[in-house]
Amino acid sequence: MTTPLRIGIAGLGTVGGGVVKIIQKHGKLLAQRGGAGFEITAVSARSRNKNRDFDVSAYAWEDDPVAMSRRDDVDIVIEAMGGEDGPAKAAVETALAAGKHVVTANKAMLAHHGQAMVELAEANSACLRYEAAVAGGIPCVKALGEGLAANGMTRVMGVLNGTCNYILTTMEKTGADYADVLHDAQQLGYAEADPSFDVGGIDAAHKLALMASLAFGTKVDFEGVKTEGIDRVSLEDITHAADMGYRVKLLGVARMHDHGLEQRMQPCLVPVSSSIGVLDGVTNMVVCEGDFVGQTVFTGPGAGEGPTASAIVADLVDIARGVRTPAFGVPAKDLVAANRATSLTPTAYYLRLALKDQPGVLAQVTDALGKSGVSIEQMHQNANGGPGATVLIVTHETTRDALDEALTAFEASENCLAPPVSLRIETV
Amino acid sequence: MTTPLRIGIAGLGTVGGGVVKIIQKHGKLLAQRGGAGFEITAVSARSRNKNRDFDVSAYAWEDDPVAMSRRDDVDIVIEAMGGEDGPAKAAVETALAAGKHVVTANKAMLAHHGQAMVELAEANSACLRYEAAVAGGIPCVKALGEGLAANGMTRVMGVLNGTCNYILTTMEKTGADYADVLHDAQQLGYAEADPSFDVGGIDAAHKLALMASLAFGTKVDFEGVKTEGIDRVSLEDITHAADMGYRVKLLGVARMHDHGLEQRMQPCLVPVSSSIGVLDGVTNMVVCEGDFVGQTVFTGPGAGEGPTASAIVADLVDIARGVRTPAFGVPAKDLVAANRATSLTPTAYYLRLALKDQPGVLAQVTDALGKSGVSIEQMHQNANGGPGATVLIVTHETTRDALDEALTAFEASENCLAPPVSLRIETV
Repeated sequence: MTTPLRIGIAGLGTVGGGVVKIIQKHGKLLAQRGGAGFEITAVSARSRNKNRDFDVSAYAWEDDPVAMSRRDDVDIVIEAMGGEDGPAKAAVETALAAGKHVVTANKAMLAHHGQAMVELAEANSACLRYEAAVAGGIPCVKALGEGLAANGMTRVMGVLNGTCNYILTTMEKTGADYADVLHDAQQLGYAEADPSFDVGGIDAAHKLALMASLAFGTKVDFEGVKTEGIDRVSLEDITHAADMGYRVKLLGVARMHDHGLEQRMQPCLVPVSSSIGVLDGVTNMVVCEGDFVGQTVFTGPGAGEGPTASAIVADLVDIARGVRTPAFGVPAKDLVAANRATSLTPTAYYLRLALKDQPGVLAQVTDALGKSGVSIEQMHQNANGGPGATVLIVTHETTRDALDEALTAFEASENCLAPPVSLRIETV
Repeated sequence: MTTPLRIGIAGLGTVGGGVVKIIQKHGKLLAQRGGAGFEITAVSARSRNKNRDFDVSAYAWEDDPVAMSRRDDVDIVIEAMGGEDGPAKAAVETALAAGKHVVTANKAMLAHHGQAMVELAEANSACLRYEAAVAGGIPCVKALGEGLAANGMTRVMGVLNGTCNYILTTMEKTGADYADVLHDAQQLGYAEADPSFDVGGIDAAHKLALMASLAFGTKVDFEGVKTEGIDRVSLEDITHAADMGYRVKLLGVARMHDHGLEQRMQPCLVPVSSSIGVLDGVTNMVVCEGDFVGQTVFTGPGAGEGPTASAIVADLVDIARGVRTPAFGVPAKDLVAANRATSLTPTAYYLRLALKDQPGVLAQVTDALGKSGVSIEQMHQNANGGPGATVLIVTHETTRDALDEALTAFEASENCLAPPVSLRIETV
């Protein structure tokens, strides 16, 4: 057996703890699979004396993760601290600059600094791997970067935030509204005390930016992801959508067009019975479409100790096996800066309009839509019992520009009681 | 750019043709991703003058695939002929013995000769890769052997034959019976003229045997797969199952027990709304369960030109990148011969009994089940209008032995008009 690879783990929370447990439990199996085993030599975390359900007393302790990255007895650094800058970034950069391999679960850091980090890694013949950063235990970085490498990728989609999917599916099932379900999710540990990264779509957008880079050979462009959270999705819209055969999902879509790269993370409607529509709870899903393979779909746990650690240790096994695949599928110098683009492809939309309940108003709506070339597939009017009426519309395929023109015209009217709600209906 | 790898393709049907098309279309992209490009240098097929929708006139022609494997200008052999023995096996063995890498889509060959071939490959420092042999375009060999390598795998399941899934889902949707749907599937090109490999479960069992080896580090043991086809699944059972909230699927299951390896491919019932239950048409699905990751599910096209070629060319890219992962996850010498085992875990069953329609008969059934310790979760009696009655039962969890005891006792009775039908209800 070859000499074991010496591992340093920075961060001993849920993720780092899971890695310790796998290496302690499966040492022999991993050595057989990897051709070389793993030996944890050093660890670093904020508090040495914290009560943990695993034992790190046999490993050297470093208060400073950067000092850990510098140790001579560490060949591979696992970064499991989180945070886009600060100590996580410093520890990773220190390791890469010293030619040490890095495995990280940190999507925020890679979404912001992925290009610089992969350049640093390649300049020092080090591996930078991040399976755990996207969709937790689902090996989708591997699928996109390796398993589907024969394809010109056409579209990548994902339900990438378990907290959001839990909230949306629970709202539909229980009829509870957003604030109540969020509160429960926090009690259950599914949502952070500060949930803005999750419900604002930012965490999911980080992951989408990494997938887009892998799929299309582009430089990671997180700022280019048009991001909208679920905090403004109302129970009313979820219920109406369900009545019409749709579910609301926080869905990420990346697509390469002739005019540039479209990246968006936003609440969308998908058919109830589609692969994405049936996805319940905290599960994640990644949909990859390529010109030869067609559509493949990957589903699994997107977070949690075991799944995230599973992804990290798989990266370790690959490193042990000598796999040196470029982090974003092609060498860093070949990654291109794509133009940012929005889709010109017509799509159907769901609209909810709050109108004065009086003669002629509905005609005004259909007229405004018609003038902009937006045609109607379904229309339902529900009297509110109040001064107004709710009108629900599913349009035929239309461009966003045409729809915006119609909505702007209509919103200016005194018969419009609230800003119109419009949600894209994604073809899946 | 590094010197291109020189490819020889044996077999120019659907699969080989797809590979030619990908390499011709994506040459530059593949070179970027692989670090080295691919150059097809030689091809071999049964008929040189066959009309093909791709051009192979620039490549050397060999009538004999073994001669192609021997050529000095071939570094990697793609075997896309099929057949478990004969020229496919000879061409692969010749290539491996000469230290050339082999990529194959041939599950029958590997199910029978996998262990000998991987030993030959390793003895000659050659790669043997077969992503296309299991579930077509779904990169599940990679997922099992690499992406989930951190786990002790607990169970692997799969819907691995598109023809069977098409037939079963079409029977349920249209109410047509087996023979009619099979005939239509043959007309549509979904089923072979001789469909016995597909509908007999053999093709799917080949794939399951490969997945089990990868998951559990065992020698491929195709003969150990308990295999039952769909040819005896009746429309009646499909309809009754649907009424009770289940779908019939040809499902492969491999599970490692303390007492040995369970491998079976058989029609099972699964809940309609489960991930496997919702799978329609020719799509394949692979479900992998590991001790840390939990359950991951992979769905996609299990056959066809583009998907199969996508998998083959992904293997080429890995070879170009220098990936030398052992074919079955661990070195050939470490693969163990597992005992064959059947499950001792209690499971629910669906039963259909044809009984004489007279007083006391139902009591006889419940009595026979009760004596063997089999308890009943649901029971429905449908009078047939004829001399007999159909009784449908869903049992609570029971062992196969207990159930067989009850069914044997009951079958001996004169009140039993036909052999009882029993289908396992799989927990998914």
